Amino acid sequence: MDTTGVIVEYNPFHNGHLHQINQIRAQYPDTTIVAIMSGQFLQRGIPAALDKESRTRQALQSGVDLMIELPVAFSVQPADLFAKGAIKLLSGMKITRLVFGAEHPKLDFKSIAVKIQNIDGDFDQFNETYASQYQQAVFDNTGIHIDEPNDLLGLAYAEACLSEKAEIQLCPIQRIGAGYHETIFDDSQEIASATAIRLAIKNQESIENVVPSQTKIDSENEKWIDWYDFWPYLKYQLSLLTPEQLSTFYGMSEGIEYRLLQQYEKLPEDASFDDWVHAVKSKRVTYTKISRLATYILLKINKNEIDKQYKQPYYHVLGFSKRGQSLLNYLKKEVPYPILTKISKKDKEGLYSLDYRAGIIYGLVSHKKSDLFRHPVQIN
Amino acid sequence: MDTTGVIVEYNPFHNGHLHQINQIRAQYPDTTIVAIMSGQFLQRGIPAALDKESRTRQALQSGVDLMIELPVAFSVQPADLFAKGAIKLLSGMKITRLVFGAEHPKLDFKSIAVKIQNIDGDFDQFNETYASQYQQAVFDNTGIHIDEPNDLLGLAYAEACLSEKAEIQLCPIQRIGAGYHETIFDDSQEIASATAIRLAIKNQESIENVVPSQTKIDSENEKWIDWYDFWPYLKYQLSLLTPEQLSTFYGMSEGIEYRLLQQYEKLPEDASFDDWVHAVKSKRVTYTKISRLATYILLKINKNEIDKQYKQPYYHVLGFSKRGQSLLNYLKKEVPYPILTKISKKDKEGLYSLDYRAGIIYGLVSHKKSDLFRHPVQIN
Repeated sequence: MDTTGVIVEYNPFHNGHLHQINQIRAQYPDTTIVAIMSGQFLQRGIPAALDKESRTRQALQSGVDLMIELPVAFSVQPADLFAKGAIKLLSGMKITRLVFGAEHPKLDFKSIAVKIQNIDGDFDQFNETYASQYQQAVFDNTGIHIDEPNDLLGLAYAEACLSEKAEIQLCPIQRIGAGYHETIFDDSQEIASATAIRLAIKNQESIENVVPSQTKIDSENEKWIDWYDFWPYLKYQLSLLTPEQLSTFYGMSEGIEYRLLQQYEKLPEDASFDDWVHAVKSKRVTYTKISRLATYILLKINKNEIDKQYKQPYYHVLGFSKRGQSLLNYLKKEVPYPILTKISKKDKEGLYSLDYRAGIIYGLVSHKKSDLFRHPVQIN
Repeated sequence: MDTTGVIVEYNPFHNGHLHQINQIRAQYPDTTIVAIMSGQFLQRGIPAALDKESRTRQALQSGVDLMIELPVAFSVQPADLFAKGAIKLLSGMKITRLVFGAEHPKLDFKSIAVKIQNIDGDFDQFNETYASQYQQAVFDNTGIHIDEPNDLLGLAYAEACLSEKAEIQLCPIQRIGAGYHETIFDDSQEIASATAIRLAIKNQESIENVVPSQTKIDSENEKWIDWYDFWPYLKYQLSLLTPEQLSTFYGMSEGIEYRLLQQYEKLPEDASFDDWVHAVKSKRVTYTKISRLATYILLKINKNEIDKQYKQPYYHVLGFSKRGQSLLNYLKKEVPYPILTKISKKDKEGLYSLDYRAGIIYGLVSHKKSDLFRHPVQIN
């Protein structure tokens, strides 16, 4: 069975994503497209603007066949662990190929990955971020500068394929239209970055030209969510936790828990999430790293929980088309990890507990139902 | 030194309270009036409508001389423990008398208290509330029906005086104007119940006739707070805590933690605090009891913390007049427990930690500063 994987966030699903799906469909007319998508909390430590069910519907209507949730233990992570989680799932499905956008799709990501296998990642420059030291090490080992976000993610996929012994063909394709960090777009554009689209929604500007209709409908009818909405809950946590308690949370190291609390205490009463992150930020600790730590605090994720999750992956099915359903039936006998199509009470307290909790907390703001007994989205 | 104590909540300070202060002043022109007031969370398990600093200012401007905070460990409690905490503090100050409003001020509360000393309080009728069984036991021992809220509180003061060996003269005075449970008032009234006043504010009706000017000013300029504002935080707790975790909180007994969580899980996503309390309520477990448990959950108060607080009382000074200041200076050498006029970092983490936390959580909604380094309110 020919299957094509994509690793996505769809925050929200826009014309750039549609373009990618159309390219895949044009090149492999009979392939089944499987998307592994972050659920309610995303790679850069932010809540999804729309809930995973809405984003699944947007994607299925645009040609994705099967949508699998990337568990929160993998989704709110730096590129290497994010990639490792997603590749582990795709590899278990014996996916034919992985298609991903890259700034430089001609790079041979797999052979670069082989050349940098010796990088141990224990960088000791305490006034530099992990990312910049990693990029320097890649250059030192290969003579190639890789410093754009999608190229770096592509390299992370290649490294994950190596470490997971995943036999997946990597198919980088040229990213078009909008840079990842671009925050504006004009009437002439049909493609804008997700960041720019989220900003436009916030500013009540039209996104009609740059998203498929379902995304537009959802953006009008659903609550549009960001850290602003979760800040009260995070403040509640930051107000009550001691550094000792905070140190048991996932991701806390080098005494960062003290800095998180100290900077919080110094803020004025009406400070925002951004104010807090900016106060904590340093040369060594990036905005994104702090946002991820904030997510772990919000979701009360402790160290053991993530380790446990890496040892017990599963496929939580968010939605499928007819073609996706056939693949799903086939996979049921083939995959090494459990497939969850509907979350049971047992799943909720066991295997799926961490994602269930993330859904419950997201639901405090979205007012959507929890994952318990929720049906996957189905389209014909 | 002639001193008169009152035990109050002032939620908010209204003409009924003013009338009481004026009566005291008329009868004892040279007395110093000391009020022991619940801080940010009150006896019936509700947040104060206005913060303690505002309520202190209202009271000092109306004739109270010294305002002491009743620690949250004592304030959010059934009548017996509430009374015990307040009497312990007043007794430590060697107060001359306690004045309190009663529906039947002619009752001899102290001798009734002596007659019911044998009631052990371990009532075993599981389909009746504690309160109704207690009232029955009082009747069985004395032949007197006591079933109105202020009479019952008066009896609790008398019992606390006995158990604390406090030599305080009890001076009940007739409550006038409005019943405790009355929820409306009209233009002809100068006195309304605090409940009715809070409801009027909520409905944006005038309270001008029934409160002193400072209360009116505060009601216009300050955020008016109720459980609605804290419900998101409580939901966050109820969403994340297991019954085992909840069972370590103060006040949990007879498996109530299961019921609190089960009823929460069954609620629709847009349910209110009231919906939840009504769902939990039973013949045995009253609205007020559930509201108190909700407060303990919100403030994350565990069993040890309250016990510790009962063994380590203190006087946190919220404000004083000139006369109050003289009393304070005198008391500094006399009282058996520490006097805190300004909360230090050491107090915040030690003696005062529970009230500090209550203040911090209240501040999430009021956006007022924490107690740390806060000066008492002073008037001339």
